[in-house]
Amino acid sequence: MALIVQKYGGTSVGSPERIQNVARRILKTQGEGNDVVAIVSAMAGVTNRLIELANEVTGHPNPTEREMDVLLSTGEQTTIALTAMAIHSQGGKAVSLTGAQAGIVTDGAHTRARIANITPKAVHDFLAEGNNVIIAGFQGLGPDGRITTFGRGGSDLSAIAIASAVGADLCQILTDVDGVYTCDPRIVPNARKIDEISYDEMLEMASSGSKVMQSRSVEFAKKFGVVFEVRSSLNQNPGTIVKEETVGMESVVIRGVSVERNQAKVTIEGVPDEPGVASRIFTAIADAGLIIDIIVQNVSKTGKTDISFTLNASDLPKAGEILDPILAEVGAGVLMESRDGIAKLSAVGIGMRSHSGVASKMFEALAAVGVNIQMISTSEIKTAVIIDESSVEKAAQAVHDAFGLGEPA
Amino acid sequence: MALIVQKYGGTSVGSPERIQNVARRILKTQGEGNDVVAIVSAMAGVTNRLIELANEVTGHPNPTEREMDVLLSTGEQTTIALTAMAIHSQGGKAVSLTGAQAGIVTDGAHTRARIANITPKAVHDFLAEGNNVIIAGFQGLGPDGRITTFGRGGSDLSAIAIASAVGADLCQILTDVDGVYTCDPRIVPNARKIDEISYDEMLEMASSGSKVMQSRSVEFAKKFGVVFEVRSSLNQNPGTIVKEETVGMESVVIRGVSVERNQAKVTIEGVPDEPGVASRIFTAIADAGLIIDIIVQNVSKTGKTDISFTLNASDLPKAGEILDPILAEVGAGVLMESRDGIAKLSAVGIGMRSHSGVASKMFEALAAVGVNIQMISTSEIKTAVIIDESSVEKAAQAVHDAFGLGEPA
Repeated sequence: MALIVQKYGGTSVGSPERIQNVARRILKTQGEGNDVVAIVSAMAGVTNRLIELANEVTGHPNPTEREMDVLLSTGEQTTIALTAMAIHSQGGKAVSLTGAQAGIVTDGAHTRARIANITPKAVHDFLAEGNNVIIAGFQGLGPDGRITTFGRGGSDLSAIAIASAVGADLCQILTDVDGVYTCDPRIVPNARKIDEISYDEMLEMASSGSKVMQSRSVEFAKKFGVVFEVRSSLNQNPGTIVKEETVGMESVVIRGVSVERNQAKVTIEGVPDEPGVASRIFTAIADAGLIIDIIVQNVSKTGKTDISFTLNASDLPKAGEILDPILAEVGAGVLMESRDGIAKLSAVGIGMRSHSGVASKMFEALAAVGVNIQMISTSEIKTAVIIDESSVEKAAQAVHDAFGLGEPA
Repeated sequence: MALIVQKYGGTSVGSPERIQNVARRILKTQGEGNDVVAIVSAMAGVTNRLIELANEVTGHPNPTEREMDVLLSTGEQTTIALTAMAIHSQGGKAVSLTGAQAGIVTDGAHTRARIANITPKAVHDFLAEGNNVIIAGFQGLGPDGRITTFGRGGSDLSAIAIASAVGADLCQILTDVDGVYTCDPRIVPNARKIDEISYDEMLEMASSGSKVMQSRSVEFAKKFGVVFEVRSSLNQNPGTIVKEETVGMESVVIRGVSVERNQAKVTIEGVPDEPGVASRIFTAIADAGLIIDIIVQNVSKTGKTDISFTLNASDLPKAGEILDPILAEVGAGVLMESRDGIAKLSAVGIGMRSHSGVASKMFEALAAVGVNIQMISTSEIKTAVIIDESSVEKAAQAVHDAFGLGEPA
């Protein structure tokens, strides 16, 4: 008998019928001789409707975070009750627990709380009585009995953390895709589902646009060694196992190709090459809450330097507003150029560490299909290039083919 | 400085604009130098939508009560967060508390829990910091950290109980009417608002169809001596104070006239006058969950008796189903007659105890307008008659006039 933690996202519980399906799936898993703990999200659309309601009531988009957590946590609480009821109506045993009732204790950082510890006594007690235990994702118990929430992707985090705390044999992240793919199948038609991927590769895929899960949950799983499987809630196909790297994994140089569209690039030319200038620019950007991705700087021999960075295209106007006055102060001859319509293409694989020639093979493949590389950024297990968004499909297909990702493993 | 508990019902918090109004009213009360604790209900319509959702998920109308409480309690939790946010957006200080966080401890009777005790330490602490404290009505903390709810009218009960626990100087039940009236103004146009009414009179008015509040909350207030005021959330008019009777109150013979429509009457004729027969009839009725109101029995000299009782017209078909087989067993000559289209008219007043002639004055008034009395029932402070529903208006007006209720106090 195994102890299995399953996580069902907002789409999987998005309607009464889908909740009934989730209930059937939980009962099927239990019927196969397992103890089941299910973590559920708010029904799709509910969280957004609650945020709207808050905006209407307050007349502005920044309600108090403490109260936002009280409000948003009702979404998952609704789902746990409905899921438990659905299991009852199918003749099964189930009990629902809020994050607080499940013993998930957090710090006091409302809307982005971090899990401090989990005391899963209630979970074990209810399991021992033959119940399926349904736990509200995304939420916990903060200091002074306050309700806290974890921010985006919080239900995945709940599932990983609960799996770790109860010593689960298996943690399944059930979603609307069959697993993690070698590339987005809408971009590269012969992309394959990956059977096994290491935490580090998953993290690079996630931060490079393959948004199956938020990085934070993967980092938590890595830290506590929680093996988990990303699989579909709509069928019984095996998914992708995410775990610590094994020697065998290194035989594959590139695990997947990740694409991030809607990027923009800002280039600042003629910046005086002296301490403090770059810091001033990026501090202003960070203070405004803008997230920048790749930064490239080339020091010239003239005492001037060019700095380029990328960010989400939607943040571009704000970046301009912030930088214009700063650049005006920095001095004459400073020129800012910005453009959107670019994309980031990343090749990810832990095999990259021990193999040379990945970058050259990638650049060769891109050159062969006439794709110009605007920026390059590398990390230990990733090589990323910035290219025109219009050439994303042929670029991704070319790199995917060059590393043989479309062939059966 | 006074400590004021205010309760806002579902209609008062039924939209973002109304929640903003409630926030303004709380801040006004605080601005006048008071500490304010506000108990709020779910937004109008929310509870019904949640019940519908539960029915859709389970496919039947009886979901598990434990999970029903988890589900329904989200309604009030949503309102406390929105109300606190609204106060913040108006520049005030507020903090929300669920029933559990407010220290409201109940027994384990899900969907109809009874309050066991209240530990209002958190409430006092937040008040001491200058906060308005917004508490979710209708809910508490059951055994093992479970969420419980109180059933219909539960938010009134929360308000009365909190007022008692925190030692409030004043408890205001804010609703969509100006207070308790001498009769329903839609029936008797010159009905007046009552300034003061005793708990017992309020209970008789409530159980006789003037559904400003559920009896349970009034009983709780009486038991713990909580003085409260029923008043409108839409204006600043003083309302009706409900409190222990005073000597002065007895100078008014009749406090009000209460009307209950949609009643039905069942008469069973020729019942053998022997032990156990009446008991068998009413046990069957009670087991089926039907609520009967007035029971009248006349023992005849022939060893046979007639039993009449009233109930809600909607329960009449079910009563027939239950009684038919029983009466068939009881013996030949038993005849059941039933009819709907009747109403109950009650004159209520603690002055009745010390005055004679109330019944005769009432019957005289009804006779003068040609209203036939079908049944009579009296209690210590109430005289009730069953009449045709079609004559309710002229009957109520006649009794109201006979006791001078339309004249200024």
